[in-house]
Amino acid sequence: MKNIKLAGLNGNGRTIVKVRDVKIGAGFIVIAGPCSVESEEQLLKTAHAVKEAGADMLRGGAFKPRTSPYAFQGLGLKGLKILEKARDETGLPIVTEVLDTRDVSWVSEYADVLQIGARNMQNFSLLKEAGKSNKPILLKRGMYSTIEEWLNCAEYILNEGNPDVILCERGIRSFETYTRNTLDLSAVPAIKELTHLPIIVDPSHGTGKLSLIESMSLAAVASGSDGLILEVHVKPEESVSDKDQTLTPEQFSAIMKKVRPLSAFMGELK
Amino acid sequence: MKNIKLAGLNGNGRTIVKVRDVKIGAGFIVIAGPCSVESEEQLLKTAHAVKEAGADMLRGGAFKPRTSPYAFQGLGLKGLKILEKARDETGLPIVTEVLDTRDVSWVSEYADVLQIGARNMQNFSLLKEAGKSNKPILLKRGMYSTIEEWLNCAEYILNEGNPDVILCERGIRSFETYTRNTLDLSAVPAIKELTHLPIIVDPSHGTGKLSLIESMSLAAVASGSDGLILEVHVKPEESVSDKDQTLTPEQFSAIMKKVRPLSAFMGELK
Amino acid sequence: MKNIKLAGLNGNGRTIVKVRDVKIGAGFIVIAGPCSVESEEQLLKTAHAVKEAGADMLRGGAFKPRTSPYAFQGLGLKGLKILEKARDETGLPIVTEVLDTRDVSWVSEYADVLQIGARNMQNFSLLKEAGKSNKPILLKRGMYSTIEEWLNCAEYILNEGNPDVILCERGIRSFETYTRNTLDLSAVPAIKELTHLPIIVDPSHGTGKLSLIESMSLAAVASGSDGLILEVHVKPEESVSDKDQTLTPEQFSAIMKKVRPLSAFMGELK
Amino acid sequence: MKNIKLAGLNGNGRTIVKVRDVKIGAGFIVIAGPCSVESEEQLLKTAHAVKEAGADMLRGGAFKPRTSPYAFQGLGLKGLKILEKARDETGLPIVTEVLDTRDVSWVSEYADVLQIGARNMQNFSLLKEAGKSNKPILLKRGMYSTIEEWLNCAEYILNEGNPDVILCERGIRSFETYTRNTLDLSAVPAIKELTHLPIIVDPSHGTGKLSLIESMSLAAVASGSDGLILEVHVKPEESVSDKDQTLTPEQFSAIMKKVRPLSAFMGELK
Repeated sequence: MKNIKLAGLNGNGRTIVKVRDVKIGAGFIVIAGPCSVESEEQLLKTAHAVKEAGADMLRGGAFKPRTSPYAFQGLGLKGLKILEKARDETGLPIVTEVLDTRDVSWVSEYADVLQIGARNMQNFSLLKEAGKSNKPILLKRGMYSTIEEWLNCAEYILNEGNPDVILCERGIRSFETYTRNTLDLSAVPAIKELTHLPIIVDPSHGTGKLSLIESMSLAAVASGSDGLILEVHVKPEESVSDKDQTLTPEQFSAIMKKVRPLSAFMGELK
Repeated sequence: MKNIKLAGLNGNGRTIVKVRDVKIGAGFIVIAGPCSVESEEQLLKTAHAVKEAGADMLRGGAFKPRTSPYAFQGLGLKGLKILEKARDETGLPIVTEVLDTRDVSWVSEYADVLQIGARNMQNFSLLKEAGKSNKPILLKRGMYSTIEEWLNCAEYILNEGNPDVILCERGIRSFETYTRNTLDLSAVPAIKELTHLPIIVDPSHGTGKLSLIESMSLAAVASGSDGLILEVHVKPEESVSDKDQTLTPEQFSAIMKKVRPLSAFMGELK
Repeated sequence: MKNIKLAGLNGNGRTIVKVRDVKIGAGFIVIAGPCSVESEEQLLKTAHAVKEAGADMLRGGAFKPRTSPYAFQGLGLKGLKILEKARDETGLPIVTEVLDTRDVSWVSEYADVLQIGARNMQNFSLLKEAGKSNKPILLKRGMYSTIEEWLNCAEYILNEGNPDVILCERGIRSFETYTRNTLDLSAVPAIKELTHLPIIVDPSHGTGKLSLIESMSLAAVASGSDGLILEVHVKPEESVSDKDQTLTPEQFSAIMKKVRPLSAFMGELK
Repeated sequence: MKNIKLAGLNGNGRTIVKVRDVKIGAGFIVIAGPCSVESEEQLLKTAHAVKEAGADMLRGGAFKPRTSPYAFQGLGLKGLKILEKARDETGLPIVTEVLDTRDVSWVSEYADVLQIGARNMQNFSLLKEAGKSNKPILLKRGMYSTIEEWLNCAEYILNEGNPDVILCERGIRSFETYTRNTLDLSAVPAIKELTHLPIIVDPSHGTGKLSLIESMSLAAVASGSDGLILEVHVKPEESVSDKDQTLTPEQFSAIMKKVRPLSAFMGELK
């Protein structure tokens, strides 16, 4: 690993990414929300529900990278405006994905954090554009990417002058078919020893299976993760995407009631 | 998953495997010891050290499945006698690997638990012979095996009349090279929902990297694992195998001081 | 596979992509040239050499998707002008990669075929933009992508009204480390049975190893591939990238002397 | 690769394994027959059919390594006697799998070549026992094994004094699901440059898909393979295993009519 900016930038200090009042890398944070923004009602209800359950930030996709061109591609600008309204009502900062270099600048007007998804991890043009924005970047690990490749992508962003990168482990592709992906929690301590950047975990995509999300959320906390990102929808059965891995607000709340105490306990254990 | 004996054998009850005074599947247990039995001094010192640090059982290989025919293949019978002595001195039950159908019967005279290693997971002759023994079997997941294949191998043992199978997740093979294997902790809740058998985790082989073992041990606890198996050696630098993933007794003791409280805390969280 | 435009578009007829005088999907074609355009001298010499050895088209990257931000990123417009000059001198149509939605339109002024690389296979914005161009698209398989996902990406292009897609198998990521990637030649007959699109093979990236390229080129011919794309450089040892897999013109010529007769023989064998 | 016996044993000469009148490593050979010996009628009819179509040797399993304990496990001794009868009638030497160290000696009384299957590739006890037999060994690559690990397994056999090892590439496990395995044909030239042993290819297991077998058989010939092993059954639809990848005698014959001329052509191309 020969990255210049990633390794030991701040002495041994760790990067803390500030998003409004939320500090990522200093205390455990939880991002929650639906895969896609589908309607104002769906998003606002979900936003209030995750806020009440203790989420720190709201996620929701206005542009969706879908396997098939015939699948729902997102509401675009309309979705961003709905996200903005949800932030106004709940105070939760917004994380949303950007797919195209041409969109980085104007999507930044709405988003608090720009997400670069797994499929675009090595979209180097997009990384550079993200590096030129003044927004924190949530950089998901490609499903086929080594830790070294992932860090080089973070380096692309840092190299453009943007120090605010949050890494997100979301499962890698393996031969196992019981889970949608294989959640590689060893990436958490690996990232901690290789870089000064914060890292969070996505058990929703990482497992693709509702019944495994709670266990993997708790395991992520214990592994040293700086946070979680979870898919929550007021009516998962009506979700246009990722039905099998989307929590109801009640399920999310139940997980939060274990995650918060565990996180506090882990703090004492150090 | 159409296994007959694995699924719901005891109503919804879970199997508890008894090994002398240790109960696997009822409380969190830790198995520790060197990869290979190398000498009486090495093993006895290690055994006393892990006992003192709170291990429940002792592991040590007398027969070693080595990639190269020119690598150390284990002490064989002599190694088993050293393990027996260590059990006499410490009271720790012994887990040791068996590689050959012809050895199952006589190795059972020494071992408390027979281990079937990852490379032999689909050695069906060995599984059947293990099923005919009256010893508990520690069945490691093959590094290339799906959860379904693994469970079918457990079923081979159960089908011969031996109900005492302990599953062990030890990392699967992926493209990532930073770690030796990719520890698949989602296998823990997956096994819990698919079977009534206990499952433990091996962060030593699962990561192959000393610096990641503590984090992954804690994550394993939080994931719901019934225990850990860890490689410990009085002098890891003199170990004939697995140097990079072998803990000193001091390191093991430090991990135990976090694992036990976390395990107790997880019990309260349910 | 529920693609609408891919499956059986032309009855059972197969798509033939015309690029100037070259027809891909009707006879065996070979694309050759350096990984990157480095200088006018390097490219022109290589272009004349591959032309002489029997190549049908010239490849060369003006924009390079590099793992590290500190690696050579390509000559950009200057590189495209060099490629244009090479086409003028040799008559070979040009294949060059495009990385950014903003570049599709103006790069199309220079290129005969736009390449979408493995890392951008699921850059859906880029696929749509490529679909709106009137240039044939060479769509490389992502190193982590199933055949189904790959075909859905082709469908993105077709769905925008561009029928001229050439698929390219370039190796997938596996656990094997002897080769850089694992060349999946079974994708060739699989693509033939699933779609009407032509498919070519890239043994340079597919193996990453000079000594294996000839064998895999011949195997690709026998598998039913419509062509090859090979990395050739007048001085591979001076190449800024992919040194280990780049042929000299002499090596390329030697391979061509086997590929052409084999291709003819396979035609008779049907 | 530090193997002593594998690398350059005979100067640059290549090992030729003699099995009755068949020489593996000197000319292209084809092994064909059913996955399992199911009955005398099934095997004899298949044996005569593959003989007539030009096969050099007969394969058939009397002991079957099956994923589930409730699947057909093979006819055992009865199956071996049927194989013997088929050899008597057709003159084709017999290849059959051995699963247990205790069986090597007596199965050798019937078999001409002992097969060690993919799941037992790293069953080191079995490798050693095979090394002590005086029979040629067909060593299949594990579905999860690197080339280096595979060669170390061959070295186990050579190291016991048995020089007659035939390697067999049969597909590795990847994330692709369209094929059962990913046939790694680059292993053929890799094995040729690393060792003096002959290597054959198994497109039946390597693809798991009837429609891909012909293409991959031809690609294997072109890659430099010393032969093929193919699953053939007089009535594939009645086969107890591997239905989806088993050729009828007519399909096998059609493939042979392309394989033989291609093999001759490749000889001239050198």
